[in-house]
Amino acid sequence: MAEKLVTIAHGGGGTRMQDLLRDTIFPLLDEAVLLDAEDAACVDVPPGRVALTTDSFVVSPLFFPGGDIGKLAVCGTVNDLAMRGAEPLFLTLGLILEEGLPLEVLEDVLRSVGRWAASAGVRIVTGDTKVVERGMADGLYINTAGVGVIGEGREVSIKGALPGDVLLVNGHVGDHGIAVLSNREGFSFDVELESDCAPLNGLVETMLGTGRINAMRDPTRGGLAAAVKEMAAASGCAIELEESEIPVREEVRAVCEMLGLDPLYVANEGKLVAAVPEADALSMLAGMQRNPYGADTRVIGHAREGRPGEVSVLTPLGTHRLLRMPSGEQLPRIC
Amino acid sequence: MAEKLVTIAHGGGGTRMQDLLRDTIFPLLDEAVLLDAEDAACVDVPPGRVALTTDSFVVSPLFFPGGDIGKLAVCGTVNDLAMRGAEPLFLTLGLILEEGLPLEVLEDVLRSVGRWAASAGVRIVTGDTKVVERGMADGLYINTAGVGVIGEGREVSIKGALPGDVLLVNGHVGDHGIAVLSNREGFSFDVELESDCAPLNGLVETMLGTGRINAMRDPTRGGLAAAVKEMAAASGCAIELEESEIPVREEVRAVCEMLGLDPLYVANEGKLVAAVPEADALSMLAGMQRNPYGADTRVIGHAREGRPGEVSVLTPLGTHRLLRMPSGEQLPRIC
Repeated sequence: MAEKLVTIAHGGGGTRMQDLLRDTIFPLLDEAVLLDAEDAACVDVPPGRVALTTDSFVVSPLFFPGGDIGKLAVCGTVNDLAMRGAEPLFLTLGLILEEGLPLEVLEDVLRSVGRWAASAGVRIVTGDTKVVERGMADGLYINTAGVGVIGEGREVSIKGALPGDVLLVNGHVGDHGIAVLSNREGFSFDVELESDCAPLNGLVETMLGTGRINAMRDPTRGGLAAAVKEMAAASGCAIELEESEIPVREEVRAVCEMLGLDPLYVANEGKLVAAVPEADALSMLAGMQRNPYGADTRVIGHAREGRPGEVSVLTPLGTHRLLRMPSGEQLPRIC
Repeated sequence: MAEKLVTIAHGGGGTRMQDLLRDTIFPLLDEAVLLDAEDAACVDVPPGRVALTTDSFVVSPLFFPGGDIGKLAVCGTVNDLAMRGAEPLFLTLGLILEEGLPLEVLEDVLRSVGRWAASAGVRIVTGDTKVVERGMADGLYINTAGVGVIGEGREVSIKGALPGDVLLVNGHVGDHGIAVLSNREGFSFDVELESDCAPLNGLVETMLGTGRINAMRDPTRGGLAAAVKEMAAASGCAIELEESEIPVREEVRAVCEMLGLDPLYVANEGKLVAAVPEADALSMLAGMQRNPYGADTRVIGHAREGRPGEVSVLTPLGTHRLLRMPSGEQLPRIC
């Protein structure tokens, strides 16, 4: 049987597009509001401050160990909401499809979107599909925007780190970037490395149940280094990290050495770094370690008085090196 | 001086991207919340039902008579919110840039985004920028998602048209599709045809101030025909249009005849079609005609009992023809 492919007609707003929506897209997303096919979805948002975010995803390849562009599109936006202390409620889904994309690939991606939206407890309530000619995209690109609600007194920012705060990271850094890169370039490992891509809203819920979070960010593009640099700069303090306490898998370290990369600059998609008051750190650490996405949580450093934005790393040799903000892109098309 | 171009490094989450945001993107959008550079924007949404929508824009060319991809991205999403009776409040802005795009083009697009957001009274509070390699996009693609609030008793749907309702359209149909196509293909006219691209939230506000709207849609891809077919199907009624009452410009008619297109199927970006109770129709018509985006508003038909989804057109010869839902795409990359 001939493989079914996306055609320009699928983006035309006519019956071919309606068929695609009715037969392929809506069933895999399992959301009744989509069936209304209104220009905009109407939803009830509980009272409170609202968090709003957006991310486009252009990862190559579309499927990689531990994830795919659909999982990434859900988790990336859910995590951006969670970083503000928001409960993620609704996502929008914008698809840009390249003519000739096998429909089966689209179905696999949408199945993943549906599964991970359910896992994160968010609803995909509205979407849009465009088709561009062959050679005008790379299979498919996804945009997700997200809406969440922030409970009273739960708003978290990148700006609130205070001298004395303890820095926590919820596990190994660099897995996502190296997993995608290795898959793209065809490196092989004895043990397959997987992306850490995961929805972190449940973990943040756990954290907020045990104490206060003064500042938080998910270290995606630019890695842990960029996230901590941004936190220090935005909070007007210095941060000191202990290199030996930052969890990095052997496979990640090995690939990074081979390619001349620093794992601290490699993208993550299921990690957060949080600055918490010392008094709350131990109970939060324990709570996080009981969560499946926080089992390997470690204390990796602390905020201190000092030059605003300065991040120093205590090396295993007992020396200090200053982290610089990365300038460009170590690994393009990683998310 | 060498032209400045977008590079892969601009998408890397490092200082090159921060420079692009600080020097180019933020100043042109003039929105203080963006400067926070948080993972998600926190905003206050007034009480009420919330409307949520998203649209990706892949129009080619990026600039055309009467608009550009930036104006389109603002107006398209504002209009989707307005079609539900919502007051548009916040937009997100997702950019996918092709390596090698002149920064000047990006600046012109963002200037337009900023200008039209101000004109429509919406704030662009959060965004995302990705860069893909040369040949993996067509200059730039934009996604906007939008959040609006729906006042008590003001929710509008595609489903509510009732037999007897009067159908109003706020002016000439087909301008956008034919303007973009003509510009792309290099057709020339004595009088230049412009896209109708416009934010319609103010017009809808005017309409809701004069009476009730039972059903409404903006006839974008698929044109007036698709919008009216969808309204009839969703509302479970039939609709009859009077062809001689549907405003079509001479230039649009001429190009359509040349290419074998039907103007009723050509995309609009500043039009709405509304079904309103007969009792409210005259005062609403008068109100709309006083609005700059409604000066050419006409009564073009009415809803009636009949086969659900059937749309017939009374031709100038006094015969009836049935409108079909378009199947595919007459004009690709039109929005």
